[in-house]
Amino acid sequence: MQRLDVRLGKRSYPILIGPGLLGSQPLLAEHAAAGKLLVVTDDVVGPLWLPRLEQGLAGRPFATCVLPGGESQKTLGNVAVIIDALVAARLNRDGMVLALGGGVIGDIAGFAAASYQRGIAIVQLPTTLLAQVDSSVGGKTGVNHPGGKNLIGAFHQPHAVLADTDTLTTLPDRQLRAGLTEIVKAALVADAAFFAWLEQNLGRLLARDSAALAEAIRRACAIKAAIVADDEREQDRRALLNLGHTFGHAIEAGAGYGAVLHGEAVAAGLVLAAELSARIGRLPGADARRIRELLAAAGLPVDPPRLGAAPMLELMAMDKKVKGGAIRLVLLDGIGRAAVADDYPREALEALLEERAGA
Amino acid sequence: MQRLDVRLGKRSYPILIGPGLLGSQPLLAEHAAAGKLLVVTDDVVGPLWLPRLEQGLAGRPFATCVLPGGESQKTLGNVAVIIDALVAARLNRDGMVLALGGGVIGDIAGFAAASYQRGIAIVQLPTTLLAQVDSSVGGKTGVNHPGGKNLIGAFHQPHAVLADTDTLTTLPDRQLRAGLTEIVKAALVADAAFFAWLEQNLGRLLARDSAALAEAIRRACAIKAAIVADDEREQDRRALLNLGHTFGHAIEAGAGYGAVLHGEAVAAGLVLAAELSARIGRLPGADARRIRELLAAAGLPVDPPRLGAAPMLELMAMDKKVKGGAIRLVLLDGIGRAAVADDYPREALEALLEERAGA
Repeated sequence: MQRLDVRLGKRSYPILIGPGLLGSQPLLAEHAAAGKLLVVTDDVVGPLWLPRLEQGLAGRPFATCVLPGGESQKTLGNVAVIIDALVAARLNRDGMVLALGGGVIGDIAGFAAASYQRGIAIVQLPTTLLAQVDSSVGGKTGVNHPGGKNLIGAFHQPHAVLADTDTLTTLPDRQLRAGLTEIVKAALVADAAFFAWLEQNLGRLLARDSAALAEAIRRACAIKAAIVADDEREQDRRALLNLGHTFGHAIEAGAGYGAVLHGEAVAAGLVLAAELSARIGRLPGADARRIRELLAAAGLPVDPPRLGAAPMLELMAMDKKVKGGAIRLVLLDGIGRAAVADDYPREALEALLEERAGA
Repeated sequence: MQRLDVRLGKRSYPILIGPGLLGSQPLLAEHAAAGKLLVVTDDVVGPLWLPRLEQGLAGRPFATCVLPGGESQKTLGNVAVIIDALVAARLNRDGMVLALGGGVIGDIAGFAAASYQRGIAIVQLPTTLLAQVDSSVGGKTGVNHPGGKNLIGAFHQPHAVLADTDTLTTLPDRQLRAGLTEIVKAALVADAAFFAWLEQNLGRLLARDSAALAEAIRRACAIKAAIVADDEREQDRRALLNLGHTFGHAIEAGAGYGAVLHGEAVAAGLVLAAELSARIGRLPGADARRIRELLAAAGLPVDPPRLGAAPMLELMAMDKKVKGGAIRLVLLDGIGRAAVADDYPREALEALLEERAGA
């Protein structure tokens, strides 16, 4: 088992990573609160992994709230469903939510826990590679609104994160690859040695080698945690974690939500950010090629769909990271060295999009 | 104009109190954000005071969200209504909510602002005496659930509070008196000199003398702010502010919500807390009589409805401040000296309730 401590003063918490965590009675005894428990999960993950968690809870009673699976369920209405379950189970402030599932479950359950009695504890039990890397650190919780993704939410740090790598054995291949994107992104932002490690160990990761996965998850979480600890509320340094995301969000929106996975859209976004960086002389061309090659070898799309350069630019300008009027991007000055930029030549961005995404 | 600064590090904010604030263009220019504005109000206060605020905003455009009045409107559904309005008005993170109304509007709008894009700024413009005193300090926001009051919410400090005492001129008499309860409570918790001032100035307050009201509001807010600054999340010292409230909540629940105003129930609760304190020898009997007399002179009910001692005890035990099994109460060791107690003789509580609330 690997362990990473996210240091946020009073709100510090551990991330534990490895096989067999959900069924571990000592771990659950250590991290579950003394009060009443509500497990929130969905109808895909619940049947697969709730029995294992039940074993870990060693006969302790708990209430359950099972939501339908899918991003379309990330609504304020489902927050109300969880709150109803918390009330029905009579959880007090010493009660705890256990969120068993992917990012959607972690985000909805996290917002419900943040809001119930103005905040009760939550332990995140992420079951997808993306959630293990991306949702474990940062404390962002929330739900979607027809007007935008994650438009309603709260910052609410978990009490602990138990990332059981066994759960990745039931993850569809496409989801596994999409999760790798966030790991590659973390390396690109801040850790060149980790990027080289990923190049060497990609085969083990795709083969779901538990030790390799735990190592990759820990290192990616550590990068994110170091950035978030500096900057708990979204600002400056935290913006670096948006590498590839302004492109990625535009691809997701342009392709229609659900058509492309978030991790797939961001993979193409990372390549675009790298290639733009190379074109304007910030990043050696050889590095941009390494990035494209690693993501391609992971089976991820490295070129955006042909949405047209103008529609892409328009969608990018709508992204909420825009300030002023220039599209703020995160670019690379090297592998492991990301920087926020709004002074790049606009023509270079337009030419790149024309080439890669031109209709 | 009186001013009180609530010191909470980065989340510090001013409370401004006095006549003519809503219509003051310099004040609004200083405290309203540069971004887009949404005014949230209700259909009682809006028609009375929105024109004045519009004058203060000096032609700046703003969107409006008008909810029906009343505690029954404090629902998650209405939070969604406000969020829809925020989305429709395209507020970004530099936007701001202006909450114009009583405690209900402040609480719902506060929770909506806390949740929209994980937190945007809010300026509270409280228009009832209770809201000017009670909701201006503490950062509690939230809505009710059929399972309990304020069961869903967040801590979200305002950017500023502008308590315009002109708005108290349109407040019904009963609401004004109910608001006085929280002012008396604040004095009882921590400031004997202020209690004596209230005894001397009650007539001016009931006559809605603007200078007297501003002085009373500032001093009550200062007491609360000093306690909350020590202890931003609910704990220890903050519990002192619950003086009279465990009794009061039981009275509200027993009488049926809406039959008795919160301030009326707490007034009877303050007298019960004082009389219990006197009976067990913590408070001089003469002080308990002063408390009863001040509240009676303010036209507040000083005895609870005859709900029966046993039902009262049961309702008090259900209150969320209960720990273990003993009913934790805030008692008085003097006027201006409140203390949390769970070691009082249970028989004394039972005998008092039998006498005052016996059916």
